[in-house]
Amino acid sequence: MEYRKLKDQDEDGNGGGDDIESRKPLSVTNVPTLGGTTVDWSKWKLKIVVVVALTLLTSSQGILIVWSKRNGKYEYSVTTSNFMVEALKCGLSLLALARIWRSEGVTEDNRLSTTLDEVIVYPIPALLYLVKNLLQYYILEHVDAPGYQILKNLNIISTGVLYRIILKKKLSNIQWAAFILLCAGCSTTQLKTNSDDVFQTPVQGWVMAIVMALLSGFAGVYTEAIMKKRPSRNINVQNFWLYVFGMVFNAVAIVTQDFDAVMNKGFFYGYSFITVLMILNHALSGLAVSMVMKYADNIVKVYATSVAMLFTAFVSFYLFGFNLSLAFILGTIVVMVSVYLHAVGKQR
Amino acid sequence: MEYRKLKDQDEDGNGGGDDIESRKPLSVTNVPTLGGTTVDWSKWKLKIVVVVALTLLTSSQGILIVWSKRNGKYEYSVTTSNFMVEALKCGLSLLALARIWRSEGVTEDNRLSTTLDEVIVYPIPALLYLVKNLLQYYILEHVDAPGYQILKNLNIISTGVLYRIILKKKLSNIQWAAFILLCAGCSTTQLKTNSDDVFQTPVQGWVMAIVMALLSGFAGVYTEAIMKKRPSRNINVQNFWLYVFGMVFNAVAIVTQDFDAVMNKGFFYGYSFITVLMILNHALSGLAVSMVMKYADNIVKVYATSVAMLFTAFVSFYLFGFNLSLAFILGTIVVMVSVYLHAVGKQR
Repeated sequence: MEYRKLKDQDEDGNGGGDDIESRKPLSVTNVPTLGGTTVDWSKWKLKIVVVVALTLLTSSQGILIVWSKRNGKYEYSVTTSNFMVEALKCGLSLLALARIWRSEGVTEDNRLSTTLDEVIVYPIPALLYLVKNLLQYYILEHVDAPGYQILKNLNIISTGVLYRIILKKKLSNIQWAAFILLCAGCSTTQLKTNSDDVFQTPVQGWVMAIVMALLSGFAGVYTEAIMKKRPSRNINVQNFWLYVFGMVFNAVAIVTQDFDAVMNKGFFYGYSFITVLMILNHALSGLAVSMVMKYADNIVKVYATSVAMLFTAFVSFYLFGFNLSLAFILGTIVVMVSVYLHAVGKQR
Repeated sequence: MEYRKLKDQDEDGNGGGDDIESRKPLSVTNVPTLGGTTVDWSKWKLKIVVVVALTLLTSSQGILIVWSKRNGKYEYSVTTSNFMVEALKCGLSLLALARIWRSEGVTEDNRLSTTLDEVIVYPIPALLYLVKNLLQYYILEHVDAPGYQILKNLNIISTGVLYRIILKKKLSNIQWAAFILLCAGCSTTQLKTNSDDVFQTPVQGWVMAIVMALLSGFAGVYTEAIMKKRPSRNINVQNFWLYVFGMVFNAVAIVTQDFDAVMNKGFFYGYSFITVLMILNHALSGLAVSMVMKYADNIVKVYATSVAMLFTAFVSFYLFGFNLSLAFILGTIVVMVSVYLHAVGKQR
């Protein structure tokens, strides 16, 4: 019920009661039992915490991935680690639900049982991500890795366009300009001496990159639509069903791709402490993405992950002794201006 | 008198009469004899023509400079060509004045004779540009040419800051953001594989680059202040006095730097058809800059010359067979968004 309140106030603006006394800081875990007058501030607090969490988790992700590779290769099976991420998210959602059931009892909004009508849309994002991940391997046959990094920024534009078309939400002209800048700025930070090789990408490489950007954008927008369709539905129940299908699809991937390796060497072969950290990180950032989808939107997600990418690069410069390039600094300036413009563009 | 009208309407907004019939297109040369009702539209037309002229002239400038060099060196003396540019601008201003005197007679606003009080400020921009040009040679001892190109973009920021401080004109937050983007975008277009060498610039190189940016910005802003101080004063008279002092300072430069060469080989030694074209181009773009200062402002000038730089590069890609780099494309996108933001930022 409280989530419905959050949602309604999001659309209607302030929900009355502007009593300063009632605006005192409250911890985020208190949100479900807040009184109506404090929801506006705690809504913002929740948004900020979730976005900062997503940014930090995504930042550390890139670094952990580098660390988890040995000689540029994964020693563990990627399909099993993906499965473990989905399983962990599922488990954490159930744990959170169990706590809520104990404190609030089982209600219409937090019960786990569902209808076919509700659950039928949940496999779709998992399926889209699976297709996207498969396509990624084919793309890398036509495009080299640095070029692929740059083409991936097309996701930013596709997310913006699909967000506008499918969710019918409007961005101001300034915000569109900011979005183009975000894409250009992120690409600039990734410029390397051999970046111009991207022009040698064959036509099928471009087509696949665009298809992948559209798939990725569509998956994000579709997830947001699912999470927001029934605002009062407990997020942990929604997550549970989302990740159950994630587990199913990843189980299929294990069987089709890594069946022999898993049978011979075992499910957890090659797992290290870093691998475990990485799975934990992926699971937590997955949950953070879900929260951003429910309480904020895809645009916020794109900004958070882009800023995270810059954080990652900054940290990498120190950890791995890279040099900060002029391109990186110029791109970072453009991204920072883009974040500013996105924020002020709202008021128009 | 008409210029005073232009100026006043610029500050007060529309000057009454919105009769559509009277807004029919008029050639720019008609401006001084326009009726009051048409000034608003013709003011805009004048602005646009002047800005387009400046952009095109500046674009072709870069290409002519490349063409006028043989084996990377100038065969003619740069000081004599600079003197010729000033002399030509002076001559063209006098020619325009002669025509105006014939048609309108000599008035308080278009007479050539002046007071010490009026003329005393005119040598200052010429002096500032001279110091700036001398400093340029010292900078190039500490910074390589591509690095110098990138440092020159500091001019954009210094012009904006001095424009705000000295002329006390306000830019909106969006316009400031656009200005930062213009600087970052222009620098991005100039990224080369060795651009990171700019970080090896010693401290005195940075200090001189900043001093030069401030000098250049100050010269521009000071010229605008002179041109606009007495809005009704005929621009050709103002130009005449500006360029007379330009001639004087350049004559000093010939004597101090190239005296022997000019004496032995002659004043016009090494001049080719391209050299003549280049002098003509410099003179015309100098006049266009004066008009931009009088009827628009330094911000418009910075945008026009930045866009011109991109034009030059585009044309060079075709003329000299360079490859368009990804950095150039990304920087161009950022500059285009900046131009858009500058325009929409005004309305806030």
